[in-house]
Amino acid sequence: MAGSFLKGRFLSLFDYKTEKYIVAKNKKVGVLYRLIQLSIIGYIIGWVFLSKKGYQETDEAIQSSVITKVKGVSVTNTSESGLVVWGPEDYVIPPQGEAVLFIVTSFLETPTQKLGYCAENAKVLNGHCQDDEDCEKGKMIVAGNGIMSGRCLGKNKNSTGTCEIYAWCPIERNFKPQGPLLSNAENFTMYIKNFIHFPKFSFSKSNVLETNDYSYLKKCRYDEQLHPYCPIFRLGDITRRAGYNFQDMATFGGSIGIVIQWDCDLDKGYSYCHPQYHFTRLDISISEKTIATGFNFRQTQYFRNAAGERYRSLFKVYGVRFNIMVHGKAGKFNIIPTAINVGSGLALMGAGAFFCDMVLLYLMKKGDSYRERKFEETKSKKSSAEDNNVEERNDPMEQENLTF
Amino acid sequence: MAGSFLKGRFLSLFDYKTEKYIVAKNKKVGVLYRLIQLSIIGYIIGWVFLSKKGYQETDEAIQSSVITKVKGVSVTNTSESGLVVWGPEDYVIPPQGEAVLFIVTSFLETPTQKLGYCAENAKVLNGHCQDDEDCEKGKMIVAGNGIMSGRCLGKNKNSTGTCEIYAWCPIERNFKPQGPLLSNAENFTMYIKNFIHFPKFSFSKSNVLETNDYSYLKKCRYDEQLHPYCPIFRLGDITRRAGYNFQDMATFGGSIGIVIQWDCDLDKGYSYCHPQYHFTRLDISISEKTIATGFNFRQTQYFRNAAGERYRSLFKVYGVRFNIMVHGKAGKFNIIPTAINVGSGLALMGAGAFFCDMVLLYLMKKGDSYRERKFEETKSKKSSAEDNNVEERNDPMEQENLTF
Amino acid sequence: MAGSFLKGRFLSLFDYKTEKYIVAKNKKVGVLYRLIQLSIIGYIIGWVFLSKKGYQETDEAIQSSVITKVKGVSVTNTSESGLVVWGPEDYVIPPQGEAVLFIVTSFLETPTQKLGYCAENAKVLNGHCQDDEDCEKGKMIVAGNGIMSGRCLGKNKNSTGTCEIYAWCPIERNFKPQGPLLSNAENFTMYIKNFIHFPKFSFSKSNVLETNDYSYLKKCRYDEQLHPYCPIFRLGDITRRAGYNFQDMATFGGSIGIVIQWDCDLDKGYSYCHPQYHFTRLDISISEKTIATGFNFRQTQYFRNAAGERYRSLFKVYGVRFNIMVHGKAGKFNIIPTAINVGSGLALMGAGAFFCDMVLLYLMKKGDSYRERKFEETKSKKSSAEDNNVEERNDPMEQENLTF
Repeated sequence: MAGSFLKGRFLSLFDYKTEKYIVAKNKKVGVLYRLIQLSIIGYIIGWVFLSKKGYQETDEAIQSSVITKVKGVSVTNTSESGLVVWGPEDYVIPPQGEAVLFIVTSFLETPTQKLGYCAENAKVLNGHCQDDEDCEKGKMIVAGNGIMSGRCLGKNKNSTGTCEIYAWCPIERNFKPQGPLLSNAENFTMYIKNFIHFPKFSFSKSNVLETNDYSYLKKCRYDEQLHPYCPIFRLGDITRRAGYNFQDMATFGGSIGIVIQWDCDLDKGYSYCHPQYHFTRLDISISEKTIATGFNFRQTQYFRNAAGERYRSLFKVYGVRFNIMVHGKAGKFNIIPTAINVGSGLALMGAGAFFCDMVLLYLMKKGDSYRERKFEETKSKKSSAEDNNVEERNDPMEQENLTF
Repeated sequence: MAGSFLKGRFLSLFDYKTEKYIVAKNKKVGVLYRLIQLSIIGYIIGWVFLSKKGYQETDEAIQSSVITKVKGVSVTNTSESGLVVWGPEDYVIPPQGEAVLFIVTSFLETPTQKLGYCAENAKVLNGHCQDDEDCEKGKMIVAGNGIMSGRCLGKNKNSTGTCEIYAWCPIERNFKPQGPLLSNAENFTMYIKNFIHFPKFSFSKSNVLETNDYSYLKKCRYDEQLHPYCPIFRLGDITRRAGYNFQDMATFGGSIGIVIQWDCDLDKGYSYCHPQYHFTRLDISISEKTIATGFNFRQTQYFRNAAGERYRSLFKVYGVRFNIMVHGKAGKFNIIPTAINVGSGLALMGAGAFFCDMVLLYLMKKGDSYRERKFEETKSKKSSAEDNNVEERNDPMEQENLTF
Repeated sequence: MAGSFLKGRFLSLFDYKTEKYIVAKNKKVGVLYRLIQLSIIGYIIGWVFLSKKGYQETDEAIQSSVITKVKGVSVTNTSESGLVVWGPEDYVIPPQGEAVLFIVTSFLETPTQKLGYCAENAKVLNGHCQDDEDCEKGKMIVAGNGIMSGRCLGKNKNSTGTCEIYAWCPIERNFKPQGPLLSNAENFTMYIKNFIHFPKFSFSKSNVLETNDYSYLKKCRYDEQLHPYCPIFRLGDITRRAGYNFQDMATFGGSIGIVIQWDCDLDKGYSYCHPQYHFTRLDISISEKTIATGFNFRQTQYFRNAAGERYRSLFKVYGVRFNIMVHGKAGKFNIIPTAINVGSGLALMGAGAFFCDMVLLYLMKKGDSYRERKFEETKSKKSSAEDNNVEERNDPMEQENLTF
């Protein structure tokens, strides 16, 4: 007895149960449901899978290393500095080939500054004075060049001059650059060495051609079709691709973003993962009217004379700042996102069925009869009339809350 | 015949089928199921959509460019260096306006170091010696200042002195800064220019007000309410917002993180995407007891005398390091995450229904009769008694595995 | 009457409805369905939850600050520079402890360069000339060292010499480093201070031991087991862990990536979140055959003689570039991803059921009878024979599209 009992219990485990359906010969709703199904299937296959690659696990935590090297030489001839030759060691700041580098295109040198007393720059706010009271001894102005000595150096007795300050004298004079001094800077070339690594898939690649021909990188220039793996760019081309003229930017300086984009479909393999270069000007927002454009800063060189006294050369340099950013993501087939997308798609079908039920049961005139059949009453089939009435009356609310 | 066959087949395609339900007049389970439904609906609408914006596709790969400019001047007066004026070109390291910049607040100069022989610093481990055996010729200590000459310079015959080394002499003396030298550094102002770009939505913005009033940036200071787009900060305010006093940090140095947060709901539009500034001290972890605080490093200036011999000035500089990090994410309505969230929510309803079935069929005393009706036997309705018995006995296992 | 009506309507709200199932005593399909269920359950529990932590919300936008400090001293002896002592202030570029730092291991000094006229380097392309026509006055070659004066300096009358240029003379001579000059650089130590912050969970941690023992960091060395929180590394060990010999890299230079990985399961707590260090060489791609290895750049020191004339020392430095990257993600239980994963898993069960239906109804020989029962016809049970026939014929298409 017990044996047969257990056996029965065990066997029944493998009886397959399937949901019972009611066929409603209603073409309107049928067509509606088919349309919903088709649209959902279309969405899953077409959009999620083909267009968005919903079946892939993606890795966006790209590890990257960028090394830059600029080549080119230029000559400037100014009254202060004379005829000077500029090499990368001078015009690339910092010189060690970082991913963010500044290239001098124009400069103003204030040659031999010594610590001492001289007049504040007339352009400095609150630097002007009527008499010594205006120049409080020891006072320092944020935008000023030194510490006030307490004396007011007037042009004449009454008119406003500026306060005397202890500073590096002579003060840098006002300067609006008249075009770039390193005129041929746009012919300099920048070599951008980039190595990337996707830890999740342990995939690595470089943007430099893998060859043994050592002279290749000496001659080639980047070309999307011919030389996609020769990351050597002419500065003028970079700004042009960003939509600006190099000479215009060179005068007051500017900032260029170079984005290296790696979109890798690793299901296709190593050779289908290419770097793409995008160039954008970073110091100009959409609406052109901004006061934040231009880029310059000051640099010093310190010297000591025979007596050991310190003096310095102050350089106000204008130039273009290149900011190399590496972005990328790699995708590879993975069961989890696939399951999530398929699953959620199927679940949406349930929502479609619910919607069609609502239509069938409440918008079709034969809805009541469908309801009766869809919802089997507990009591025996032959139920009293008023029962049915109540039933029908109740149903509406019932359904709404039911299959929701 | 064939025609009618195909016609029937085709038409039947559009018969709508709907699942058959059984009405169990059981209020307990009914209420339970309603509660589950409500909670799931509440979770989907309230939590996923309103609070977490589950209907949005997000882009967290923000592209950003940061340019900084510090203004201010200070004066120091030390025995070695005398009265010196410090401008941004001196106290900002590096001077070219990077996103990571160091501002000198205190320093120790060792003026005219020449290469030669002198005694090792007494603070250096293993630098001490009893006699020449302890100072192996040519030996270099990792934390030392030079290469040992092999001689031991004792204070007197027996007591421990230090080894003689070939190094830049005189050796830098030990130094514990007594408060900052650039005392007014906290009044310096930092201008943080930030441009961002969300590639996925090709959306760009800057944190600088878009105006034509060139004097605006000369006068304004950042204020969350009044001037949210004037990114000019007083150093003292930055440290204060980070919860620390500038003067305390200035003495031994420290590190401050400035996070610019862009949380953009692009469904609302351009003007609803604002930068938020957060300031945190980076060199102190939660539990204050750490030995890793403070920040200093050494710098040199090289000179040559008339004879062409090299000598140098060594600067040990203390200061505050500002690390500007830009984070952000943009969200925009997208059908895929919406579908995933709705779909998974609906699927959870299935789990709820399964749970209620379990309750109804096994915890209610009328469970057996419900089972009978829920699971329609293959055989004709009038089944023999022992059949039913077996049926009932089997069911439990059946269900459990069934609708799971 | 109305009262009872409303009452009935209200009560019926809480009638529980459950789907009606048909028991198909078919072991084959039953077993198949059980297997599908088990595999899906196994996938959800085992893979999604245990292995991939699918129940966690993750934060990958890690905020991090890195400060480095290198210690060690070395001596070089060259004909140009003589016996020179190198400290961190000299061989670490830049010296201020950035996350990307370059350490000089070899160099070539071109001591006293003055602006003037001399012969172009013979290695420069297009630098050679037969006569003055080849040296167009004022012409500058991208890879050259200066501006052409227009004269051709031939070795003898006919053979090819090089053009005369105005440049910093003498020109740097060609140089292939014969092994590193800072021979003991591999014994230098690098201290990597890293602070991280996960904004989403407002969780912060440092990679430095939290102790009061100030001498700890003076003595310890990193050891995964013994000193996981002593981030002080010997340069030689770093390259060794990256799989390369320091001396080999030191000769021509190279680039090393140091990845600090923070994988934090915040459900376990603060003490279960440890930094892991990975070392990889960045300037060599998988297939060793690349021309992009090595790393060097040029640096200058400017001097003025008694007459105030500028002259400079040009340093071509080779060395190892360390690029410290911080990655990490933190995970914490969250209801949303859990719901998404469970929901989509359940939805997959529906797909399983659909598949089994197909098998049952079309591959089993008793399929027709199952179909009849699964799909209840609108018309009264006793349906005419030809009806059934049509029914059967139609069904195939029906199902396929139906439960899809």
